[in-house]
Formats: sequence, C-alpha cells, structure tokens
Amino acid sequence: MELHEALALDAADPLAQCRARFVLPEGVIYLDGNSLGALPRATAATVAARVEHEWGDDLIASWNKHDWIGLAQRLGERIAPLIGARSGEVLVSDSTSINLFKLLAAALAARPGRTTILSETGNFPSDLYIAQGLAGRTSARLRTVEADAIEAAIDADTAVVMLTEVDYRSARRHDMARIAAAAHDAGALMLWDLSHSAGAVAVDLNAAKVDLAVGCGYKYLNGGPGAPAFLFVAEALQDQLESPLSGWLGHDDPFAFAPDYRPAPGVARFQVGTPSILAMAALEAGLATFAGVSMAELETKSRRLSDLFIALAEARCPELKLASPLGSRGSHLVFAHRNAYPLMQALIERGVIGDYREPDLVRFGFAPLYNGFAEVWRAVDIMAELLATRGYDQPRFRQRSRVT
Amino acid sequence: MELHEALALDAADPLAQCRARFVLPEGVIYLDGNSLGALPRATAATVAARVEHEWGDDLIASWNKHDWIGLAQRLGERIAPLIGARSGEVLVSDSTSINLFKLLAAALAARPGRTTILSETGNFPSDLYIAQGLAGRTSARLRTVEADAIEAAIDADTAVVMLTEVDYRSARRHDMARIAAAAHDAGALMLWDLSHSAGAVAVDLNAAKVDLAVGCGYKYLNGGPGAPAFLFVAEALQDQLESPLSGWLGHDDPFAFAPDYRPAPGVARFQVGTPSILAMAALEAGLATFAGVSMAELETKSRRLSDLFIALAEARCPELKLASPLGSRGSHLVFAHRNAYPLMQALIERGVIGDYREPDLVRFGFAPLYNGFAEVWRAVDIMAELLATRGYDQPRFRQRSRVT
Repeated sequence: MELHEALALDAADPLAQCRARFVLPEGVIYLDGNSLGALPRATAATVAARVEHEWGDDLIASWNKHDWIGLAQRLGERIAPLIGARSGEVLVSDSTSINLFKLLAAALAARPGRTTILSETGNFPSDLYIAQGLAGRTSARLRTVEADAIEAAIDADTAVVMLTEVDYRSARRHDMARIAAAAHDAGALMLWDLSHSAGAVAVDLNAAKVDLAVGCGYKYLNGGPGAPAFLFVAEALQDQLESPLSGWLGHDDPFAFAPDYRPAPGVARFQVGTPSILAMAALEAGLATFAGVSMAELETKSRRLSDLFIALAEARCPELKLASPLGSRGSHLVFAHRNAYPLMQALIERGVIGDYREPDLVRFGFAPLYNGFAEVWRAVDIMAELLATRGYDQPRFRQRSRVT
Repeated sequence: MELHEALALDAADPLAQCRARFVLPEGVIYLDGNSLGALPRATAATVAARVEHEWGDDLIASWNKHDWIGLAQRLGERIAPLIGARSGEVLVSDSTSINLFKLLAAALAARPGRTTILSETGNFPSDLYIAQGLAGRTSARLRTVEADAIEAAIDADTAVVMLTEVDYRSARRHDMARIAAAAHDAGALMLWDLSHSAGAVAVDLNAAKVDLAVGCGYKYLNGGPGAPAFLFVAEALQDQLESPLSGWLGHDDPFAFAPDYRPAPGVARFQVGTPSILAMAALEAGLATFAGVSMAELETKSRRLSDLFIALAEARCPELKLASPLGSRGSHLVFAHRNAYPLMQALIERGVIGDYREPDLVRFGFAPLYNGFAEVWRAVDIMAELLATRGYDQPRFRQRSRVT
C-alpha cells in the first residue's frame, strides 16, 4: 500500500472527524493510547470550570449544587453503554487494583466453602498481586494456569475466575462468553478486567453473562493520567455482594453518620471514600469523546488499523516478528525484536510513540477515535527507515520502561 | 470587642498575608475549610499546566520527564513537616478510608494473636465502618468505648488503637502522646486520623511516638474536592508492615512485571494502583499555601480565631450553647441550637458558610491561612442579627447536610 491509499482510507473513515476532539502535538504519531489516552480538546476547559467556578465560587455548596455527590454514578452511566452494561451497573471509583480487591473479596464471600481465585499466569501483574494480597490474609488462594488451560481448571473449589479480556502484552482476546459460561457451570463467578478493552473494542458484558468487571479510565477512555477507574456488578448480584472496603460513601445513608455500616442498595455500595472531583472532571471530558460513536464501528476501525500495521510491517520490516495473534485481539500489537529497547527509543525520537515491554517487545496501540490509516503508514515507514539505516543488529543497553 | 479592634488584630497578624494565596468569592465569609479548603490562587494554573503541557504535549513520556511516578512520595515529603514526620515517612495516596484499611490490616497482621481494634464510639463514622468491614472478614473485632474510657480499655488483646485526633463534631483534641504511650505499654500499635488536624494545628507525630497515621487532603490542606489523602508509617515499622492492597505501584520493582508481589522498601509499599496525577497537581498547589508558615504560629492563630468567636458568640448570641471544649481542641467549633438547620441555612444565605451537623449543631471552621479576625467579628454580627430579627424559636423542617 502507498501513502495515498492510506490517505484515501482516512478520507472514507466515518470516525475520522473524531480526531478533532483531541489535542495532539505536531509531528507526533501517538500509538500509546493503550497506556495513556491523548488529551481531549474539551478537558482543559472542563477541569478549569470545575476548579474555578465550582470549587472556587461555590465551594462546599457544590456537593449539591453541581451534584458532585452523584458524579461517581453519573459517570458510571456514561461508561455503561461502552461495555454492554445496563443502567445502575457501573460505578466510577478508586483505581482498577482497588476495585479488583473489592470485587474479589465480595466474590469469595459470596461463594462460601470455595477458596480458589483462578487466573492466568500471564495476567497483568497488578491483578495477580491484588489477588495474592487478598489470599495471603484469608483462607483463599490464587491459582494461575496458562491461558489455554483455564476452562479445564475451573472446579468445585473455584469461587471466582479473574481474567483480563485483552492481554496487556500480546493483545490476545479471550472469549468472554465461553469462559463465563464455564465458570457458571461450575458454580463460580466470572470477573473480567477490561483495562485494555473498554473504549477500544466492542464489549458486551450482559450478552456474555458476566458477573463482575473492572477497568481503567486513563487508557482508551481518555480520562487523563491516573484517572478514576470503574467497576461493574451485574444487577442481579448487587445486593448479594458486599465490599470489604466499607467506607462512608458506600453507606445506605452516608450523611446520617450512623455508627454502623449498612451498605447502600445497588452498585453505590462499592464506593469508599470521597473521590477526586477534579479527576472526575477530566474523565467526564474523556468519556464525551465517544459521543455518537458505536462500539461496533470503533472495533471495526481498530481492527483495520492494526491489520494494516501488520501488513505493512511484514512487507517492510521483516526483522520484526509479530507476537500478537492474527485472530481475536484487542487494539494494540506487539512485535519481538532483539533490540526492541533502542528501536523504540529511536522511534520515539522520530515522533512515533509506542512503548517497550520486557524482554524484547515493541508495542503499538491504535486508538480508533484519533489514530488514522496514514499515521499507521507513516509509523511503519519511519520504522522501516530506522531498521534499514541504523541496523539495530547489535544488542544494546536496555533500561526499563516505566509505563503500562 | 468592636469591629475596629478585630481589624487591628488582622493588621497585626503575621499570617494575614497568606490570605492572598487564595481566591475567595466576594461577600463570603468562608468558615468551612474543615470540610473543603478554599481554592488556592495557584491551583488553576498548576492544574492547567499539568493538563495542557504535561499530559497534552508530553503524553506518556511525562511519567519520567515530569516525574509523575515520584509524585506520591514527593507530596508526602511536603506534608511531612506539617505533621512532625521525617523524610520518607509520608505517602500521598488513595482516600483516607482506603489508607485506614491498609494500615489497620497491616497493624493486625503485625500483632498476631491480638484481635481488637480499639476506637472511640464517636469516631468519624467512616473510620468505624472501615474497621467493621475489615473485622467482618477476619478474626478481628472492633471495640468502641467512650473517649474518656480509651486508655483503660487498652488490653493484651488490643492490636491497634485507632482514634481521630480532632473530633469532627466537637473539635475535642486527644492527647496523642499520652494515648500512644498507653497503647505501647500494652504492646499495641497507635494509629491517628489527622483529617481535622493536619494544616490547622501543630501535630508532631514523632514527638508523640505515633506508629501510624492517615489524613485528608481536601480540608485544611486545600487540595481540592476529594483530593488524594495521605498516610504515615513510622520509619522503624515500615519494613515490618505489609499492605493488604498489594497493587503494582507498591511493588519493589513495578516495571519488571514480575509474577509475584514483593513489597517495596519503605513507605512506598503502601501505594496501590496508578494515582490521579491531575488530582495531585491540585494538592501540590494546596500544600504550597503553607510556604514559610510554621505550624506553631498556625495553631496560635487558629486558637485566637476560635477563642474570639466563642467570646463574641457568648456575648451576642446567648441562645447558642457551645458544644466544643474550652480546653484542647482543633480549629473548628460547634454550637447547639434548637433550630440549627434553618439557622445555618440563613447564615449561608447571608454569606456566612459553615455547616449543620445532626441533630442540632452549627459548625464553624477557622482556617488560619485565610480566615481573619474581622471575618469572625462579622460572622457573629450577622448571626446575632439573624437571631434577633428572625427568632428561630420554632422547630422547622430539617434536612440532612451532605458534607463533612
């Protein structure tokens, strides 16, 4: 494919106009929205209004006047259609790791007599760490198996199956509905981490009969660095599950200041302490970038972008070995290269922002709202030029990247 | 005292120039900094720079380039001198409630064989709820006693004594050193919640030999609504305590993506997931309002402001009954009045912002950085006029306030 053909794909792209919803630096091809989403154009003004007009002018009265108290649930309602959840099933709060702790602990308590949290050996490490921390203080245990052994490993001791839909390295995508059905057949609950899925591919939690989910606000949802995360609890389960982090905002009547905790009905019981209202302003602006976009067309474009990257890289960068599946996957790609670290550093110097992953992977994310086909073409063009002119055939110093 | 005398006190106040560090609306006497600190003048620009220049321009590279990864500890270093902590003892993270959960769970694990979390019946409800949630899933129990019975109640089963230094209603202040000594004599750990202390009175955790503390970023620290909270772990204990919320940012080498959790040395192990970098920008600006201010002079002014309020209210509003102690207390006051709710509503309409607390209390907070003596005089003057002209002797409809 030539550049003019890629430009023609952009011209015909129904989502192309969404790029104007973002501010992207000149000369940068940003292929790291899977680590930190780009800055939406509306964010600065949305945050400034909350700082100056709400906090500054209305001070404490803003909790009611600007419904700060309802923000966690209102933003949950905005995320719900992106992940196939119903109204009242999603809450914005805390971090992905903390939400995972809440839901895992609640799931274990809802399956008395069962002690196993079953996960995948290659799951995102923080998810495994959280399960380890929980297991270390209770009678529960974390058991991890390889991806293809999960269904066979679900047994009568499995309280909850905890998996990430889209692998943070390979982008391999699990079959949510099939694994959820296997968990249910064994009487276990199913929990999905949607951090690398939400806002990039079409997720339908209720169609897949998922019980529990968590996800990240700062990747494809464009909520800003360290944005508040979200959690999902299927409606039918909400009143059976209780959060171990029983903070006052999850209380049925937080402002009564009653001495005993009594969980709120519904998903609100998974709130803990007072959330950052400024961080939620940025997440609100991030979620607004999805206005009018269907998740099906988003996923279609995601797939076309990454398919194009694979085809161009195969043709022009044969030294790279695709380490992502050709089949079902999320919206990023990884390639192995013996000098992955200096290659990625050189790409970044040339304005192509992806990231390096231990031990030998370069990773590129495709955010369908703002990435385009000509960007993909140019990124591969730059990479081909670097590989052809600079070599990268000698091992070089590697240092660790600091982002996910 | 007459107004001109109060104005003279402001003119002689060494902290008077700090008020210019804040933006306060015209015509408002803001006596609610104990619920939500006022907006610092620098916050809007600090947050905007992080949004537009760091996130917007430098995107993912900001984690290193702008040391986002170090923010939680850097801001902890800024809080340390406000609470008598040493370098490396304070971390900014999550919410007060979540930090309390981490430290209580760590304390229980560090005192095997002991099962009691001892607290005060009137402690802030969210603190009690968190302890209840933890106790409900372990062999621990929460025991609460009245304030004056705490020391006698510490026994060989007490793992940790959990108290709030300054009571959220009465402002009664505990003797931190004495109760900590009693806890230690019995082999228990001592945990203080500094939410209503930090930034308002002189706290010296190390002088009081405190083991653990948590506190709030959005009250006197002026970090904005729902600002990140902080936690303190005495240096000698840090490597003995482990957080149950073992997320990746508390890992010894988070970017190695190792399969097993290994806690970082020092206070960093109490980090969990990725924190909101935007919320931390606002907290950074909030902490900057303390530049050059000693906690001793802050506490002196706090006391003089509230003493003046008491004297004026006694003289001019005899219907109000002081429900705060005349002795050791924090930086707010509560008064009982049979029609406290409509009285506070009327005060707010007249621009005097305090808050109402169930069942019959009006509460006024004095933030020594921005409140002044003439403000205190005017607030009482307005209240006296309201009481004289509108009565408030009939019970009226009450509804709950939504803030702490």
